[in-house]
Amino acid sequence: MSAVPKAAIIGGGVIGGGWAARFLLNGWDVVISDPDPEAERKIAEVLANARRSLPALSDVTVPKEGKLSFAASLEDAVRDADWIQESVPERLDIKHAVFATIQKHCRADALIGSSTSGFKPSELQQGASRPEQIFVAHPFNPVYLLPVIELVGVEATLLRAKDVLDDLGMKPLVVRKEIDAHIADRFLEAVWREALWLIRDGIATTREIDDVIRYGFGLRWAQMGLFETYRIAGGEAGMRHFIAQFGPCLSWPWTKLMDVPELTDELTDMIADQSDAQSGMHSIRELERIRDDNLVAMMRALKARNWGSGELLNIQDARNKPALPSDIAKPLTTLERVIPIDWMDYNGHMNESRYGQVFSDAGDVVMQMVGADQDYIASGLSYFTVANEIGYLSETHLGDVIHVRTQVLEACGKKLRLYHEMIRTSDGELLATCNQLLVHVSLETRRSCEPEGEVLAKITALGEAQAKLPSPASMRK
Amino acid sequence: MSAVPKAAIIGGGVIGGGWAARFLLNGWDVVISDPDPEAERKIAEVLANARRSLPALSDVTVPKEGKLSFAASLEDAVRDADWIQESVPERLDIKHAVFATIQKHCRADALIGSSTSGFKPSELQQGASRPEQIFVAHPFNPVYLLPVIELVGVEATLLRAKDVLDDLGMKPLVVRKEIDAHIADRFLEAVWREALWLIRDGIATTREIDDVIRYGFGLRWAQMGLFETYRIAGGEAGMRHFIAQFGPCLSWPWTKLMDVPELTDELTDMIADQSDAQSGMHSIRELERIRDDNLVAMMRALKARNWGSGELLNIQDARNKPALPSDIAKPLTTLERVIPIDWMDYNGHMNESRYGQVFSDAGDVVMQMVGADQDYIASGLSYFTVANEIGYLSETHLGDVIHVRTQVLEACGKKLRLYHEMIRTSDGELLATCNQLLVHVSLETRRSCEPEGEVLAKITALGEAQAKLPSPASMRK
Repeated sequence: MSAVPKAAIIGGGVIGGGWAARFLLNGWDVVISDPDPEAERKIAEVLANARRSLPALSDVTVPKEGKLSFAASLEDAVRDADWIQESVPERLDIKHAVFATIQKHCRADALIGSSTSGFKPSELQQGASRPEQIFVAHPFNPVYLLPVIELVGVEATLLRAKDVLDDLGMKPLVVRKEIDAHIADRFLEAVWREALWLIRDGIATTREIDDVIRYGFGLRWAQMGLFETYRIAGGEAGMRHFIAQFGPCLSWPWTKLMDVPELTDELTDMIADQSDAQSGMHSIRELERIRDDNLVAMMRALKARNWGSGELLNIQDARNKPALPSDIAKPLTTLERVIPIDWMDYNGHMNESRYGQVFSDAGDVVMQMVGADQDYIASGLSYFTVANEIGYLSETHLGDVIHVRTQVLEACGKKLRLYHEMIRTSDGELLATCNQLLVHVSLETRRSCEPEGEVLAKITALGEAQAKLPSPASMRK
Repeated sequence: MSAVPKAAIIGGGVIGGGWAARFLLNGWDVVISDPDPEAERKIAEVLANARRSLPALSDVTVPKEGKLSFAASLEDAVRDADWIQESVPERLDIKHAVFATIQKHCRADALIGSSTSGFKPSELQQGASRPEQIFVAHPFNPVYLLPVIELVGVEATLLRAKDVLDDLGMKPLVVRKEIDAHIADRFLEAVWREALWLIRDGIATTREIDDVIRYGFGLRWAQMGLFETYRIAGGEAGMRHFIAQFGPCLSWPWTKLMDVPELTDELTDMIADQSDAQSGMHSIRELERIRDDNLVAMMRALKARNWGSGELLNIQDARNKPALPSDIAKPLTTLERVIPIDWMDYNGHMNESRYGQVFSDAGDVVMQMVGADQDYIASGLSYFTVANEIGYLSETHLGDVIHVRTQVLEACGKKLRLYHEMIRTSDGELLATCNQLLVHVSLETRRSCEPEGEVLAKITALGEAQAKLPSPASMRK
């Protein structure tokens, strides 16, 4: 392959643009060929999305972006390309014409992938000068984020394609025998057809169908597929038990797909054996915990985005939200919560940074108490944290219930000093402390200034009431 | 409803246990009825999983757990229950017998839900004394985490059931007309049947099928369903365009489900109108960004779990990992990275705690440089962070590329003091600083001690080389 490898993207729609982004953001040079006068704008839009999201998947330095260019002709585009990806409309005659031109001008060792959803490689290769060079490389939208690629074609070619896709951080999956629509789109098409019936017959709307997916099995399928999920459902008895239990349903009208294979002992064994090979290294109990940890982590990720099942969690939190501390003459209980899985390090300790989050959240409660809330921020005023001094005293574990006791040390003019103690509720152990210095700022001038109106009155009253408290025990040590 | 409401769980398997957990962990009293002598053990196992994961979905105080008991008889269990949930085996004769006993002894205003996967309410209600009391409340495993519940039955009853489920933080979805297997299981069954063919015909193994789901459309479906996803695929032209484009495929053998509705103008309009009502408040561009942010956040959540698409991201990071700083006589560049979406606050700033994560990660690089790595930890020795003092100097935004410059201020005996500067790479702006104090500890005695062997040699050399550097500019201000 060239020093800087080169990809030719033939057809620059959403799919072609996604491929372009994958190559570019992994350091490849990319040349686009598309007769559409709008192609440059369309590619730029997909790239803008990709640049915003793909690099953010990485926690290390990302490769330097390759060079993007637009070719005047298909010939020019493919001449010295290492990988040529065809994403033109789904018509076999168009694809055949494109492949003929490509093969006339490209290197004999170039890889020629097709993004086709439905055509088999044997169909794509009809009449080709080097049929073995052409294969299916079927991606999923958005191509710059979803990693799986279905590869179908001649083995020797696919092995080379697989290496390239591995390097791009993708998940190439070689399909063992060609079939219409490969694998995933067969599932998608079956669900789509079933869904059309449900809408036509007034059983459900598009929104209801989407909700039943994304608040339900869609979450499961983001981390385990059909079989690993059902293996768990089968319990300790495993896959064989599950098939035995649900086998009879195959003849019931539970879907419009009534053409079903006979559930012979041979097929049952095949599934059970494959499932053992796939998941047998984990007990059912382990699989349950892996699944649950994944679900909690993903649902909490969606919670931060306030979307889908995550939005529901925010609604429930709002319902369970405790009242703000009312006795301002006492140390304030600003927080009480459970330590969740997504706060843990690989070594089973709470990540160092999450202590900061606990104290930041505790500080937010003080903000709410004095009315420095969203409305106040919208009016152009806010408190900013200027410095945090965190002391780590003891380890915090998954599932610990903790609370934070907060004292206002100073509330004078622009300056607000808080002292927080994070305590394990079960045994009263002091886990960490934090000195938090906040400064009141104008969001307009970006400079510090005195608080105003009700916030000034409340912070002053809070500061005065708290000033009478002895200094916290752990500070006196 | 009673002061502390009460749920009777009839049938205590994985599904019944999941229901029990949902009620208990939301403060309901729960009584279980199950003739299986193993029921108590099985319920305890499901509850252990649920207690580990459900409360962790919350960021506020969770309700106090209700009281769990086991009834000697079905009659005793249901007598004063507010909600009765039937999860007995999927045989209509068994269910009819159970409902008859329940209705003889329960309150007339109790809600009687059935977890049935396939039976319609009209079938469940056959021969019942108060048919309208019985409805389908179909959950998804694990019931203590997945929120959606399909409700099918008499409207007045379902409205009351919906209120209860809303309070439990669930997502009740009223199915408009009864149908075999309700909605979601029709999709699952279609995919299952399609998958059986693929395995029987040697197209793919269970693992390959699972991978094509969880590295592909499964991720999409955790946050948007079928229709919202396809609306985006249709681009600005929307749903009508998508249907026009993919309509012809309905007659192609893309799945074994060949019984398809006719794609009339009426059906197309129905889908397009429903999709407008569902998603029309967002432009396609907005939907793309919402989708991408969700995908990035979920994939990063799986990355922390090192599972599925997240494991792939870790492999890619390992591939792109930069070399450790080699010139120890200069300030060390310990980190370079992009600020990802899951680090952002609702107000568009980087969450306060993520500064701590950046500095903690930078400190980890120093640990790797001196050989205080996983093996060293396994040998029973490690450095612990004792205190962090973070100064926040400027705002950090989504997509910023940042790097960290680290100086070793002191490396003497047990004590290690690091000073980090976090800098925006594009304009060199200093965003935050951190004084990090680490102490070397024995993991056995949990007390501080001197480092040993190669680590001692390396940390001493590093400390001496860095001692010759001037103190950092921002510390001198």
